[in-house]
Amino acid sequence: MVAHRSEVFSNSLKQVATKLMPVFGTKEPVVVIAGSGTSALESAVCNVVHEGDHVVVVVTGVFGERFASICESYGAHVHRLNIEWGTACRPEQLETFLKGLKDPVKAVFATYCETSTSVLNPVKDLGAVVKRVTDALYIVDGVSCIGGVPANMEDYQIDILVSGSQKALMLPPGLAFVAVNKRAKEAIKNGPEKRFYLDLNRYIDSYDEAVTTPFTPPVSLVFGAEEVCRMIEEEGWDNVIKRHEVLRNMTRAGVKALGLPLLVENDADASPTVTAVKPDGDQAGAIKKYLQDHFSMVVASGQKQLKGKIFRIGHMGYSTPFDVINVLTALEMAVHELNGRDTFGIAVKKAEEAWKAHV
Amino acid sequence: MVAHRSEVFSNSLKQVATKLMPVFGTKEPVVVIAGSGTSALESAVCNVVHEGDHVVVVVTGVFGERFASICESYGAHVHRLNIEWGTACRPEQLETFLKGLKDPVKAVFATYCETSTSVLNPVKDLGAVVKRVTDALYIVDGVSCIGGVPANMEDYQIDILVSGSQKALMLPPGLAFVAVNKRAKEAIKNGPEKRFYLDLNRYIDSYDEAVTTPFTPPVSLVFGAEEVCRMIEEEGWDNVIKRHEVLRNMTRAGVKALGLPLLVENDADASPTVTAVKPDGDQAGAIKKYLQDHFSMVVASGQKQLKGKIFRIGHMGYSTPFDVINVLTALEMAVHELNGRDTFGIAVKKAEEAWKAHV
Repeated sequence: MVAHRSEVFSNSLKQVATKLMPVFGTKEPVVVIAGSGTSALESAVCNVVHEGDHVVVVVTGVFGERFASICESYGAHVHRLNIEWGTACRPEQLETFLKGLKDPVKAVFATYCETSTSVLNPVKDLGAVVKRVTDALYIVDGVSCIGGVPANMEDYQIDILVSGSQKALMLPPGLAFVAVNKRAKEAIKNGPEKRFYLDLNRYIDSYDEAVTTPFTPPVSLVFGAEEVCRMIEEEGWDNVIKRHEVLRNMTRAGVKALGLPLLVENDADASPTVTAVKPDGDQAGAIKKYLQDHFSMVVASGQKQLKGKIFRIGHMGYSTPFDVINVLTALEMAVHELNGRDTFGIAVKKAEEAWKAHV
Repeated sequence: MVAHRSEVFSNSLKQVATKLMPVFGTKEPVVVIAGSGTSALESAVCNVVHEGDHVVVVVTGVFGERFASICESYGAHVHRLNIEWGTACRPEQLETFLKGLKDPVKAVFATYCETSTSVLNPVKDLGAVVKRVTDALYIVDGVSCIGGVPANMEDYQIDILVSGSQKALMLPPGLAFVAVNKRAKEAIKNGPEKRFYLDLNRYIDSYDEAVTTPFTPPVSLVFGAEEVCRMIEEEGWDNVIKRHEVLRNMTRAGVKALGLPLLVENDADASPTVTAVKPDGDQAGAIKKYLQDHFSMVVASGQKQLKGKIFRIGHMGYSTPFDVINVLTALEMAVHELNGRDTFGIAVKKAEEAWKAHV
């Protein structure tokens, strides 16, 4: 450890805050908070939403619902646009919903990658609707995809974009990231009283003054973030984005070849960072267990209404095509074992074809 | 990294939550939050203090003032008991202050070790006053000393005791700890609406259900905390406490021998974890710089009204008597260089005498 008020730490933080700017597609240094992704979500609420404000939350899964819950805990009138889980929100759906509201809306919340379903919402198209139909702030949760997908806050018309360290940004959990544009900064300045640790003014002011943090930062994780920025630079940001698309395409091609249904049927709605698989019957748990028991390979379970119905394959951050080959091989062996089918090589073959198209 | 919803992580968290119980002197598992120490302070405010509540904050330095600021940001009427910086709060002072208030007090806040001055407040004696004179909750900031000083929430009548990972608990920053007793749990259940990430009910309920966290925990730091608990067990908790007393006594004896004034004059008010030195004139900065330039040794500056007037020597966590010998040797060389005095060996000699008394 080094002292967190030292020049060496300040330099590291400066690297992270500025080198993440293209990754978030922002023109302002990215704010770093010690906390889980949820602390970033809450900061995007408690700094701009006043008690009694009307807000719209696009709910496509667990994390859209979390945004709604946070808004409710701060006394907002929450209008949920509930979308069937496994499907992305269409811009037309949002437009119709917004036009149906009587009260002016303070903010519209959306989830970029809804990690609970592996849907990637079309946040650019949704942003265009928000700005055409309302004067609302547009606030996006990018926790499970930023670092693996393109983001351009100006082009997408996003005012606040938040993320966490432990997904495509390849770090252990414990760092939250918040990118705000100039309009959001103004709203934050005039935000509610009841905030202290998550008061973004404190973080923004600390950058203006000396590139430091208002409260003791998680030094080891910031050092890690500096290395992550270096890795992204080394690979090239465009190549990182392309690699994630390849990983998604390989995964989907392989899973389909195995005859396992994908939760997200529409290719255009599928996240480049995670893929949810919905096997027939109750096999999700059995497949997850087989992978764990035989290969110490961890896939994630479903959450809430999808509990027991899906498993999710993460393919983000430092994941490579060979990692996808490995998980598909493991799936071939699991399906062979559980269903007695001749599966060896069939998923890998399709994944290789999907990979070759990009090489 | 491992999946944070895995059994291996749950087991690690369970170890940390229970093995820290004697360190906090609590009968309940210690809550772990991803955040800075200030997030722990805020959790102790926002879960129990309602808008309009009257609260008392004992302010003996920067971190007492921080408690007061947090309470104000949540709309409390804050009654500050301001104590001269460098001095501990006497129980009689608190008793007189509390008896002078007209309104019933919801909570009394105190700082165990005020790290900005290196004062250790007599939190047990203050607790006795709080409970004799009021019905208030008694809430203590133990960030810069828990893990290096005794704590017994029942005996000291503390309802909420908070700390952080990066001081005497020897970890990188990024973990906040909160210990609550049964009475505090009740208050937290009936706490204000406007909280989500720092809503302690969520953390307490997660322990009751499956020993997990409501939001993604900082896995690497929790693994570190497990090792910290093992180290404390290995040394023996009583020995850890004794070692910190020895470190303080050695440091104070050595600094005095060098003719450098201590900010905390009264030995009984001095923290076992940190010692503030207040050299005559403007030498604090010069000494700090000498240590940094010649030995890459970092002592901390003064904060706020003590800026430029003091430097602070940390002697906590994994610090050993030999670390104190080293910093005193460095100070001897600094004072020799800056003042031309024959200082070699004189601080070390006194420190050895203080050490010998405990060996």
